[in-house]
Amino acid sequence: MGEAQVSLKHLFRVFTKPEHKDSKLAQIEEHLSDNILDFLSQHVVTKKTSLEEVEQDFADAKMPETPEFVSTHAENLLEKLVAHSVNTYSPTFIGHMTSALPYFHLSLAKLLVGLNQNLVKIETSKAFTPLERQVLGMMHNLIYDQDEDFYGKYLHSARHALGAFCSGGTVANITALWVARNKTLGPQGSFPGVARAGLASAYRHYDINNLGLLCSRRGHYSLSKAVDLLGIGRENLITLPCPNQTLDPALALKQGREYQEQGNKLLALVGIGGTTETGHIDPLDELADVAKELGCWFHVDAAWGGATLFSSDYRGILKGIEKADSVTIDAHKQMYVPMGAGMALFKNPEDANAVRHHAQYILREGSKDLGATTLEGSRNGMAMMVYSSLHILGRKGYELLINQSIDKAKKFAAMIDAHPDFELVTSPTLSILTYRVCPQVIQQQLKSLPAAQSQRLNSKVDRLVVNVQKLQREAGKSFVSRTRLESPIYGPYPITVFRVVLANPMTTKRDLKAILEEQYEIAMRNRVWQELLASVPQETLDQA
Amino acid sequence: MGEAQVSLKHLFRVFTKPEHKDSKLAQIEEHLSDNILDFLSQHVVTKKTSLEEVEQDFADAKMPETPEFVSTHAENLLEKLVAHSVNTYSPTFIGHMTSALPYFHLSLAKLLVGLNQNLVKIETSKAFTPLERQVLGMMHNLIYDQDEDFYGKYLHSARHALGAFCSGGTVANITALWVARNKTLGPQGSFPGVARAGLASAYRHYDINNLGLLCSRRGHYSLSKAVDLLGIGRENLITLPCPNQTLDPALALKQGREYQEQGNKLLALVGIGGTTETGHIDPLDELADVAKELGCWFHVDAAWGGATLFSSDYRGILKGIEKADSVTIDAHKQMYVPMGAGMALFKNPEDANAVRHHAQYILREGSKDLGATTLEGSRNGMAMMVYSSLHILGRKGYELLINQSIDKAKKFAAMIDAHPDFELVTSPTLSILTYRVCPQVIQQQLKSLPAAQSQRLNSKVDRLVVNVQKLQREAGKSFVSRTRLESPIYGPYPITVFRVVLANPMTTKRDLKAILEEQYEIAMRNRVWQELLASVPQETLDQA
Repeated sequence: MGEAQVSLKHLFRVFTKPEHKDSKLAQIEEHLSDNILDFLSQHVVTKKTSLEEVEQDFADAKMPETPEFVSTHAENLLEKLVAHSVNTYSPTFIGHMTSALPYFHLSLAKLLVGLNQNLVKIETSKAFTPLERQVLGMMHNLIYDQDEDFYGKYLHSARHALGAFCSGGTVANITALWVARNKTLGPQGSFPGVARAGLASAYRHYDINNLGLLCSRRGHYSLSKAVDLLGIGRENLITLPCPNQTLDPALALKQGREYQEQGNKLLALVGIGGTTETGHIDPLDELADVAKELGCWFHVDAAWGGATLFSSDYRGILKGIEKADSVTIDAHKQMYVPMGAGMALFKNPEDANAVRHHAQYILREGSKDLGATTLEGSRNGMAMMVYSSLHILGRKGYELLINQSIDKAKKFAAMIDAHPDFELVTSPTLSILTYRVCPQVIQQQLKSLPAAQSQRLNSKVDRLVVNVQKLQREAGKSFVSRTRLESPIYGPYPITVFRVVLANPMTTKRDLKAILEEQYEIAMRNRVWQELLASVPQETLDQA
Repeated sequence: MGEAQVSLKHLFRVFTKPEHKDSKLAQIEEHLSDNILDFLSQHVVTKKTSLEEVEQDFADAKMPETPEFVSTHAENLLEKLVAHSVNTYSPTFIGHMTSALPYFHLSLAKLLVGLNQNLVKIETSKAFTPLERQVLGMMHNLIYDQDEDFYGKYLHSARHALGAFCSGGTVANITALWVARNKTLGPQGSFPGVARAGLASAYRHYDINNLGLLCSRRGHYSLSKAVDLLGIGRENLITLPCPNQTLDPALALKQGREYQEQGNKLLALVGIGGTTETGHIDPLDELADVAKELGCWFHVDAAWGGATLFSSDYRGILKGIEKADSVTIDAHKQMYVPMGAGMALFKNPEDANAVRHHAQYILREGSKDLGATTLEGSRNGMAMMVYSSLHILGRKGYELLINQSIDKAKKFAAMIDAHPDFELVTSPTLSILTYRVCPQVIQQQLKSLPAAQSQRLNSKVDRLVVNVQKLQREAGKSFVSRTRLESPIYGPYPITVFRVVLANPMTTKRDLKAILEEQYEIAMRNRVWQELLASVPQETLDQA
């Protein structure tokens, strides 16, 4: 029953004997290479399966005692795992930042495992180390645009780093703020710096109560992880209201000053280059000036929006990013690289030294080992995926992709605007937008109601939106996400909205039209829709 | 010249049009699938190329403006990158923990990218979430061996986590110590805990000077990164001498008490389950008791040695690991999974809640999203690789692999012992051993010299070892690493040694014999060898 023999000889086969060309795994590979959308639509089950049902296939905590044939296992994978995974390639899966990828990544993934380099040190990565440094250099160049001399001097310097490659934006944000913390509370006189002496000693030495971080309420949850991890404390992540989705520089300056006047030190101001929820971009240029005035580090979290720099048409909306001390960009978002490729870039090539670590057997002083200034140790060669994408797509290729995503988002926004029973909540700055379904008559009523009453009515609309989002997901044809946010229309009370990310180049206008229609149909059939209409006085309905 | 057209149509091709079956990338894939060792030996250049030469291929910080044809790019990759990468599959590459992998991982890598799930949340991973939880459960079971009720209750509980999957051992160690810190300095009365209030407030509240970590000098450099990152400070990582490569429990207790008596709080005692440098295992059972007596967290870093638990013959040497509050295991080491699969396991399923984070649009309260208790945010589905390996190899398969690695190491140790001009420095506990080349007559002389003089002579032997290691690596046939450590033979003065990791199942006794012979030949031809012999009085040479 699929049990393989337990002998060294059998085991060595998995290392030495290639999979047969007709094997199940070879078939999977071929199908993926031939037509990935077809593979996914054939194997990913669209009918509703509850998480609890899926869990039953993964319920045993006892590991298998005896080996299983590869082919048997491949069948099991298809049936238990692939069948109940999410079709992120689908053009109608527009709820998150995961999208279809170019075909060449399938082959590169295989090459990556075939090489199985470890980028912590040159001895186990060799050419991958200069490659990763070059990728970081190109991204640095894209942001900071320094001259040839600069990159000639720093790109491959053992004592410098233009950035840190990592598994994702969270680690990138943590790395950037770790550098900021260690630099801000660095060695001074006989004080050896926070890295050596710890945070409590550093506070005593620098005579500060607390260290704080300032950003808008749209700041990514990784900032909260970062201040926890770094010992700063979540209470010192000061998030400012942003009814228009972006941080007001005047408010940032005022709150920053107040915080400082209380005997605290401001570690950093964080500007967002594309919020996760609505895609908005903070006024980076002005925030850079605020940070300067406050005398603190300026970090830009452009995990999502950083790739907009590829577009000559749109890079202007990130103006000021070049003044940032550090920038986060995720290649696995709008650079269409497989999951697991984040980067923190540093304006000043010396800064990463604030977190430099050495060891006897690797990362020796003076070596170019990348692990000396990264949070992670052993790491795979994901940088190759970014390198290849930069070459195969080129700046102009990325530019087209970025432009068409934003254009598509604008068209979808117009579609929503034109529909009487939908309400556009945030217009697309980049390719993200939020909206909700809400009977037109309720929209009109909400406009005339005082705040408290409109809040009550809105919470009913929230329920409708939640229901529609869930039912649409369960129907399996398409996926739109949801979030809660303060809106420019309804003030400080957050409302629940649909959230759409138009990153998949394969998503067509027709797909979008169908998604909207599906939502409308689900909504009208929903109990809450009827309740909403029933709450409206008959005369209003007659007028409508 | 390999420039592709910049048009949306061309760009969409990389997303929609599969690579042709005769394309360069398809050829690379086929070669990898057919015979990976042949692919690598054909494409990885063995002749010496300096890093500086390689860097010239990655010197431009300007990203390409126009797209490149995939086939042109594939040629470039082979020539610039693959040619100068490290052949980690080679049976004679025995210097690091990166080894050959089973063939099925090549296909799985492709499937992983084809699915491109994001494990931060269920909405973008679905079945991968229960799968990852099951993998963590199986590893938890392997260590802690709880009953069915336990796993039935906690494996898929939204409010619990048996561990955290991450990119590698460094992040696993950091995660474990982050949990330890937040639990140790948790909420108390009106104090909201270190996660919220920060480290300085926590020190004030708990009235402590410093928080410290205790481990042996063989502790991995990630511990130093961890105490820096967590705000504890590197000075509070107390590393104890271990001339016999393992931590003496009596010494740990004594030093721990002293540290506490100075008004400090001991956060954790770290035991090592397989040191990176020599593979030694601390006396975990006794250290667990020491930690209990000191009233601190007990963490075991078994990134390397954890897989020994698969072997009934050898799991006994990890006795006491089941008393650890947290354990780190890397699947990309002795579990033969591609780079990028680390795990932190927690004895108590409640503990991970000490680092729980929520956000509005994902990781909602009560959800089973894995991102709520992991350091990383967006993550790929590497857990599938571990899952498949556990099934295809089974416990018994892993057992055989572990046993034969250790047996091989013992045989190699005997080979070294039998050679008059080699000196075994540390015997293998697991499959790692260290040794050095040193003319027999010098070995004899060292035995009779007082410490200061022997140190001078040893530093000359060190130079010989460094030269041999470098020249052997440059010759390209084989790779052995080197490190510096205190040895049982020469006391507290560290010496430079060769370090060998026998993880690759394909490495034969004949390979090992050839490596030793090559080292011997390189050594005898080396200038330092002559210098060493010249320093010996003629009469001693005559007697030898």
